[in-house]
Amino acid sequence: MAAPRYDVVGIGNAIVDVIARAEDDFLVAHGMHKGAMTLIDETRAQAIYNAMGPAAEVSGGSAANTIVGCASLGARAAFIGKVKDDKLGKSFAHDIRAANVAFDTKPAADGPATARSFIIVTPDGERTMNTFLGAARDLYSSDIAENTIKDAAITYLEGYLWDPPHAKEAFLKAAKIAHGAGRKVALTLSDAFCVDRYRDEFRNLVKNSTVDILFANERELHSLYQTADFATAVKSLRADAKLAVVTRSEKGCVVVSKHATEEVPAASIAKVVDATGAGDLFAAGFLVGHSRGKDLRTSAQLGALAAAEVIQHVGARPAVSLKALAASQDLTI
Amino acid sequence: MAAPRYDVVGIGNAIVDVIARAEDDFLVAHGMHKGAMTLIDETRAQAIYNAMGPAAEVSGGSAANTIVGCASLGARAAFIGKVKDDKLGKSFAHDIRAANVAFDTKPAADGPATARSFIIVTPDGERTMNTFLGAARDLYSSDIAENTIKDAAITYLEGYLWDPPHAKEAFLKAAKIAHGAGRKVALTLSDAFCVDRYRDEFRNLVKNSTVDILFANERELHSLYQTADFATAVKSLRADAKLAVVTRSEKGCVVVSKHATEEVPAASIAKVVDATGAGDLFAAGFLVGHSRGKDLRTSAQLGALAAAEVIQHVGARPAVSLKALAASQDLTI
Repeated sequence: MAAPRYDVVGIGNAIVDVIARAEDDFLVAHGMHKGAMTLIDETRAQAIYNAMGPAAEVSGGSAANTIVGCASLGARAAFIGKVKDDKLGKSFAHDIRAANVAFDTKPAADGPATARSFIIVTPDGERTMNTFLGAARDLYSSDIAENTIKDAAITYLEGYLWDPPHAKEAFLKAAKIAHGAGRKVALTLSDAFCVDRYRDEFRNLVKNSTVDILFANERELHSLYQTADFATAVKSLRADAKLAVVTRSEKGCVVVSKHATEEVPAASIAKVVDATGAGDLFAAGFLVGHSRGKDLRTSAQLGALAAAEVIQHVGARPAVSLKALAASQDLTI
Repeated sequence: MAAPRYDVVGIGNAIVDVIARAEDDFLVAHGMHKGAMTLIDETRAQAIYNAMGPAAEVSGGSAANTIVGCASLGARAAFIGKVKDDKLGKSFAHDIRAANVAFDTKPAADGPATARSFIIVTPDGERTMNTFLGAARDLYSSDIAENTIKDAAITYLEGYLWDPPHAKEAFLKAAKIAHGAGRKVALTLSDAFCVDRYRDEFRNLVKNSTVDILFANERELHSLYQTADFATAVKSLRADAKLAVVTRSEKGCVVVSKHATEEVPAASIAKVVDATGAGDLFAAGFLVGHSRGKDLRTSAQLGALAAAEVIQHVGARPAVSLKALAASQDLTI
């Protein structure tokens, strides 16, 4: 097995975030599930945009944020996802390339516009997402660049890929290529409602070892195993998964392997400004540490560091070099 | 004279900011004047965008930022400026309306794209702007809504309006309407290099009382009177202007009227994150105070408060309600 050219390649929905602040009343008035990601159609997208306050537009997408975080930590990273050849699609491509990520997926020439997620940030820093998938729906198996997957130590996939109709085939193709080349496959469960939509499929992916490393937050884990008891959920998780990391916000994370459970605290912060990207950036830190052969605790600490940085400012991608930040805290990568 | 329907109406270039962080080296490598606004053509715009890092897109424009600041302070505010009917133009219109500003200028159906300013923020918080004027160039006298101007206590204009070919006619028409209705006209000098381009015209606007209230920062004032000595510049300013406010960054501001000079300190802050919008928001606070009949010192304090808020985060528009912020510091409006 040749040395990998990339540390991590991510496959996910290529999305531009449209972020505005609002009071909790706004969520109630518009029937939004606080903290969740809800899929919306174009009519609803327009209605939400009309109702929401002044907005900043920044590139987003869960796995894309993770991959940008990996690059910020100094990793060699690539991304696969579909935009349209329109204004937002060009912004997405510019931003991810400017972050030192290889991005070569061909944009769609026609069809729906580039995906956007209307993100409402409430005063407590929580984010509520309404995503119009647009062009991201048209990610096909043919978009999976075989050589890129073969050349990456870890292929990272987002659970949200189960939403666009063809993307799950692309997902499975990528996992097969990765394993065929002796590489690892990681998955994030993405969102508790997403788990609700695809519970059995996600459990199968973990049980049949299509996925080597699973990321979930507490709500997603409880949704996956349909239990309110954390210990019960972790027990089921250990039975199913080779390696899993469960993030618990300010309580830190729990790394679950076949023979051990390791708790790692969250990095302390002053104030949550915008929780968008917390899980994405945790995954970035863990993936980079793991792909570089760090132990599980150090990998989780890198995750905690990256997550802490991103929740202290608006937007889901790092505002500083995470590599420099890690070095300043004596975490070598 | 009927009571005004608006406290302030602003006329300016309708611009979307494309903001990225970079080291000072980037400015040197691309021949940029640090801290200044440089006009660029479409080719240069593309070259800068290709070279710059991941960017956030937020609505901007100097007078537009000021007017949004006025609305955030609870003032009744309107804006006149030209966008194209494209993606960026729609974002600009959405954002300014969502900030409670009346905005009824008809967008251009064809011609150049909506204006954008590529803003590089260096580690010291200073911003360097490269503006492609695009559709903003096509602001005509016919876009000046007579009833809006007549109904506003103060019409506020940006010096940058001297750059688009037809906008200065629109500027002069607005000033004439305002004075005909017994209202006041305010102008910001915008940028030292802008003053350099139009020095004599700006001096005449002040001397012949086309402008009642002048805003300038120290560099712009020195450029206007071509002197490096602050006292000399202030003496010339007092001779020319009815009322002027000179902002001096962390040194606060100086309010110059015919018979007095009043110094008002800056509001203390922890760290300058992004200086973009400092002057725009200072003007907002002063204009709202002045239009509501507050004394000069209180008006300047409102300016200092609004400027301090905006330089502590990325972007040139307030992130919180300035009205609530002012109230929390016992500054009533």
